[in-house]
Amino acid sequence: MPKMKAAIFVEPGRIVLEDKPIPDIGPLDALVRITTTTICGTDIHILKGEYPVAKGLTIGHEPVGVIEKLGTAVTGFSEGQRVIAGAITPSGTSNACLCGFCSQDGPGTRHGWKPMGGWRFGNTIDGCQAEYVRVPDAMANLAPVPDGLSDEQVLMCPDIMSTGFSGAERGQIKIGDTVAVFAQGPIGLCATAGARLLGASTIIAVDRLPDRLAMSRRLGADHVVDGGKVDPVDEIMRLTDGRGVDVAIEALGTQATFESCLKVLRPGGTLSSLGVYSTDLKIPLGAFAAGLGDHTIVTSLCPGGKERMRRLMEIVSSERVDLGPLVTHRFKLDDIEQAYDLFAHQRDGVLKVAITP
Amino acid sequence: MPKMKAAIFVEPGRIVLEDKPIPDIGPLDALVRITTTTICGTDIHILKGEYPVAKGLTIGHEPVGVIEKLGTAVTGFSEGQRVIAGAITPSGTSNACLCGFCSQDGPGTRHGWKPMGGWRFGNTIDGCQAEYVRVPDAMANLAPVPDGLSDEQVLMCPDIMSTGFSGAERGQIKIGDTVAVFAQGPIGLCATAGARLLGASTIIAVDRLPDRLAMSRRLGADHVVDGGKVDPVDEIMRLTDGRGVDVAIEALGTQATFESCLKVLRPGGTLSSLGVYSTDLKIPLGAFAAGLGDHTIVTSLCPGGKERMRRLMEIVSSERVDLGPLVTHRFKLDDIEQAYDLFAHQRDGVLKVAITP
Amino acid sequence: MPKMKAAIFVEPGRIVLEDKPIPDIGPLDALVRITTTTICGTDIHILKGEYPVAKGLTIGHEPVGVIEKLGTAVTGFSEGQRVIAGAITPSGTSNACLCGFCSQDGPGTRHGWKPMGGWRFGNTIDGCQAEYVRVPDAMANLAPVPDGLSDEQVLMCPDIMSTGFSGAERGQIKIGDTVAVFAQGPIGLCATAGARLLGASTIIAVDRLPDRLAMSRRLGADHVVDGGKVDPVDEIMRLTDGRGVDVAIEALGTQATFESCLKVLRPGGTLSSLGVYSTDLKIPLGAFAAGLGDHTIVTSLCPGGKERMRRLMEIVSSERVDLGPLVTHRFKLDDIEQAYDLFAHQRDGVLKVAITP
Amino acid sequence: MPKMKAAIFVEPGRIVLEDKPIPDIGPLDALVRITTTTICGTDIHILKGEYPVAKGLTIGHEPVGVIEKLGTAVTGFSEGQRVIAGAITPSGTSNACLCGFCSQDGPGTRHGWKPMGGWRFGNTIDGCQAEYVRVPDAMANLAPVPDGLSDEQVLMCPDIMSTGFSGAERGQIKIGDTVAVFAQGPIGLCATAGARLLGASTIIAVDRLPDRLAMSRRLGADHVVDGGKVDPVDEIMRLTDGRGVDVAIEALGTQATFESCLKVLRPGGTLSSLGVYSTDLKIPLGAFAAGLGDHTIVTSLCPGGKERMRRLMEIVSSERVDLGPLVTHRFKLDDIEQAYDLFAHQRDGVLKVAITP
Repeated sequence: MPKMKAAIFVEPGRIVLEDKPIPDIGPLDALVRITTTTICGTDIHILKGEYPVAKGLTIGHEPVGVIEKLGTAVTGFSEGQRVIAGAITPSGTSNACLCGFCSQDGPGTRHGWKPMGGWRFGNTIDGCQAEYVRVPDAMANLAPVPDGLSDEQVLMCPDIMSTGFSGAERGQIKIGDTVAVFAQGPIGLCATAGARLLGASTIIAVDRLPDRLAMSRRLGADHVVDGGKVDPVDEIMRLTDGRGVDVAIEALGTQATFESCLKVLRPGGTLSSLGVYSTDLKIPLGAFAAGLGDHTIVTSLCPGGKERMRRLMEIVSSERVDLGPLVTHRFKLDDIEQAYDLFAHQRDGVLKVAITP
Repeated sequence: MPKMKAAIFVEPGRIVLEDKPIPDIGPLDALVRITTTTICGTDIHILKGEYPVAKGLTIGHEPVGVIEKLGTAVTGFSEGQRVIAGAITPSGTSNACLCGFCSQDGPGTRHGWKPMGGWRFGNTIDGCQAEYVRVPDAMANLAPVPDGLSDEQVLMCPDIMSTGFSGAERGQIKIGDTVAVFAQGPIGLCATAGARLLGASTIIAVDRLPDRLAMSRRLGADHVVDGGKVDPVDEIMRLTDGRGVDVAIEALGTQATFESCLKVLRPGGTLSSLGVYSTDLKIPLGAFAAGLGDHTIVTSLCPGGKERMRRLMEIVSSERVDLGPLVTHRFKLDDIEQAYDLFAHQRDGVLKVAITP
Repeated sequence: MPKMKAAIFVEPGRIVLEDKPIPDIGPLDALVRITTTTICGTDIHILKGEYPVAKGLTIGHEPVGVIEKLGTAVTGFSEGQRVIAGAITPSGTSNACLCGFCSQDGPGTRHGWKPMGGWRFGNTIDGCQAEYVRVPDAMANLAPVPDGLSDEQVLMCPDIMSTGFSGAERGQIKIGDTVAVFAQGPIGLCATAGARLLGASTIIAVDRLPDRLAMSRRLGADHVVDGGKVDPVDEIMRLTDGRGVDVAIEALGTQATFESCLKVLRPGGTLSSLGVYSTDLKIPLGAFAAGLGDHTIVTSLCPGGKERMRRLMEIVSSERVDLGPLVTHRFKLDDIEQAYDLFAHQRDGVLKVAITP
Repeated sequence: MPKMKAAIFVEPGRIVLEDKPIPDIGPLDALVRITTTTICGTDIHILKGEYPVAKGLTIGHEPVGVIEKLGTAVTGFSEGQRVIAGAITPSGTSNACLCGFCSQDGPGTRHGWKPMGGWRFGNTIDGCQAEYVRVPDAMANLAPVPDGLSDEQVLMCPDIMSTGFSGAERGQIKIGDTVAVFAQGPIGLCATAGARLLGASTIIAVDRLPDRLAMSRRLGADHVVDGGKVDPVDEIMRLTDGRGVDVAIEALGTQATFESCLKVLRPGGTLSSLGVYSTDLKIPLGAFAAGLGDHTIVTSLCPGGKERMRRLMEIVSSERVDLGPLVTHRFKLDDIEQAYDLFAHQRDGVLKVAITP
């Protein structure tokens, strides 16, 4: 059985590169040879043991590569095609998918729904920090890369671009909206870019790292608020003349940012939450107008599927958004443990790394 | 100055009937002679001092009456017309109104938004538990009562029908949805009726009072769950085969019901909240899928304005929903203190009272 | 090779029952043994040669049956299960499906879209007026029939219930809307029922056949207009006090009804079109307010897929709508040519026929 | 009675500058002293007698100015404030407004709806090509100009920016959509800018004038198609690889462009129509997929009201869109007849003119 290298979760604190068999594929699958991948904040949660996965699982959910082999029932693609697949790989055929909630896909359940069921790579099946990855439900998930786009140009599509944009989309941003985005890590930066893309007229980015605030300006923020220096709620209320924002996007996953979002929302506003939380959340009574403020809170899990990927790659092709500067570091797959070390400790101004087998 | 009788907030624990001048009106107002009104759960919060209003304020926000006099700038109505006005009386001209959030109306503010600003009757201006009431922004708020409808038939339109239905509407109920409604007081019962009206295929009503559960069946519930006998979350998960509901409506205003709503929601589901809360709320991490479940939480304040009232009265006229049985007791205005006593203590199976000057 | 009986298109004017091999199935398919099916108005278009299909094709797109055999890649179902499938059988995996337009599915095209591509049964592949049918993309399309529902109770789900309801849904009917439905054939009757299900307060049904108008009342119409006796546009404007309707549903497919819909629409109203047209359509300038009336015109092709079918069967189970009376005649498959004769000539008050192999 | 100069419709072919009394105002009105205004394509329809207005009416619906006087019932504004008002001046209080269709406002009608009823300036009441204009329903319509914005910077907000953007908004453009915009006059150019603002990834602009195509590139078009040189339908189908566009915007008001829009739409696509038509329209059967293509056709009349104006001025302030280059010529009010002559004949590359009293 041929072998490949893969980044494997061993135990909390240890993700290591090991040899592993190249995956077999079933009739609906594709085998993709990875040419570039990356590490996500979620992978760090896995590394730290905060998000549990099976020991021995290959990590990673952001694949760029080439179709090596197609399952016997797969049509419409050919071997050798350059493709990406989303971090979320919906079946397309579950009740959840057919109802428009592809990320909550539950094809194997009685009723067709499963919380986060569409997230399979590096979570419930082997992921793509490896030389090869099995892509399930290939017909719904393989998205050909347009000619002229490099691996790095499409590397953000599978997860952070899709997730970040969904924060803006689910917030139903309208032309002329004022939007606050709390935290400017890779997801928050993409939410900022997404808010810009949807016609917000005023975008206020909050973070504590000057580099990230500078990047948020580059991606579309009109105002930046350094949460280490001023109280972001006060500052946003000042900037909005006491009215608050139409949409507040949470992109960190903490009580503090969730609560600040509510506090800066105008009545009738929307809190669009992207963060992965690790504690119960508190909704402050006052900011929630005792339940009478016509507020909306929405959460999103990264939208996947090939149509989403096609659209995001179109955004890249047409130069609407340039996420190139987010790739701050590059590593060989052989050195992925170093990459994890850098990324986990947010050293050296790292935003995203590119990993190439 | 001619006098009238009015139910006045004196201090926590005391709402009394007193004489008061008949209101003056400004150019945009109308003076309406009340023929029927009612008491709302919110009025009990006011009575108990849980919701603060000015001492001496006339209470009540559910007017049915006859136009006595029109402001000098008011056109399109005539004195002597039978009308209702919503509990919420938007100006129609603030930024919030023009943006579609009439209940958060702030015409007197710099920016045109004010949390709950559309709720004026018995909150920021004198209400309608009186012989006369001043209706502000009359052109936006007076809704003629169709011939053939009695006062009692339209008495629920100004508040509980509008509020309850909005729970179903803001939940974006779709044909074939499964819906749970927590609490079957007047608002919850109207939410149950609203869910039925919007095509839900399975409606599960939760309460602890057998009379209310019986009424919920009459208004459209398919299953009733007695929260005093079984765990409602367990029971709803059993009834939905482990999937949960598409939409859960909260109609009480407590942590327990809010939390139960989240626990019975399928991924991608919507919690539509109608209750008035008196504490911070907790979102349990698990039920919220750590923020990755594509959940939506929406709150609503009773939609007002004459078009809303027109539509609700059409629903009554066309016999889609019969809320007549909700009026369980009738009082003269002179006896309103007794009515408060009955209603506040939920004695004698009271659901709603009709008060006639 | 085992044979079965099937109703086959031979040439315009001739659909005949013939022997044909029982279909083979591929890995994604299911073989379903038909227990009940029906004839659709579209089949009559095919019969008359107005809608072209290949000679030798088995007609029919409304299957109720039992799973006989499952493709090798199909999971989540078992042989012997009672199921239906929609008239439209989307793949679930095309770009159109993943974008929410399952009826315009184009899995075999470069870009994943094909006009009406989701309509395959009795159009581009063999249909279900036969003893057996091959269901493509079985995982997306097989919908188990709930215990306790008879074949006839679910027989309308695959097409006319789904189509008719979509007329109401795509019209975005809101609580309190006034709706006109032009033509009360099976689709129009289901649109009437759908309008009722979504909270319309006034439903005006138009037809020329007294039986159909009587049935429309039974399914929810408040007013019926006999287009043979009065001018429907005049009558609807009279009934609506000169305002017009919020939503007008076209359920016949003619210029006259399409145009009447526009003429009775209030400004800002929606024309929801269900008919299959056979000529270019004219939009009258005046009724269209010269393009300045904020009008919307939407067309729909029957929504399919197992989630849609599940929801419709829930509506039947919960007795929200009783379409049982639409089945006016019953035939054995052996006598299907007689059934076509009756149905094509609309003799004997026929609405829908049940065909049982 | 003090006099002012005003451009008056005398008869088809003649709009002349004359003396006229400065308008009186009622309690809900404001008197605004015009500092800048412009001429719209609609005014040319009026000039030519194609759109009928009363003889003696002051023309013009795009006011920038200063509040001279406020009606007795108007609050929230002060004399001397710099303001704009939309071309459409909704009351805010009619049923149509309260239902979200402000442009179809009918405050003086029995039922509160009137086709195009919100368009009053230069249509049903005196307009703003004059030294002063009466703004009706001032509280709903006066929008203060942010400090730092010049008259010319906000001059496009009242009509063409609001109208053009609404073409993109009503088309419900999504991130990654491909959009075609037919005709690149001022409205079409703003539709192109609006499509860009809402996240379209590919925008194809069609016109026959090289200057306008060049301007469309500047405002966001990715591809320009010269309809005088190639067949736009063929070219757009080629550019979209045979799939067609997600949204097609019509910005001219002719059968040819309307029909081309339908022909380039993918199934499930939306035709968003902005043009003012002068003939019945034909929908070609094939392009409409016989009514089975899940197509949507929407029309829009310029959204007005102060909140819309506020949002558009925010877009200008934040430099999202620069419509400055659209003002190609400047005239004194005294020379407005010359301006009409230039604009009506589209001489000298004119796009928009600025008129200053």
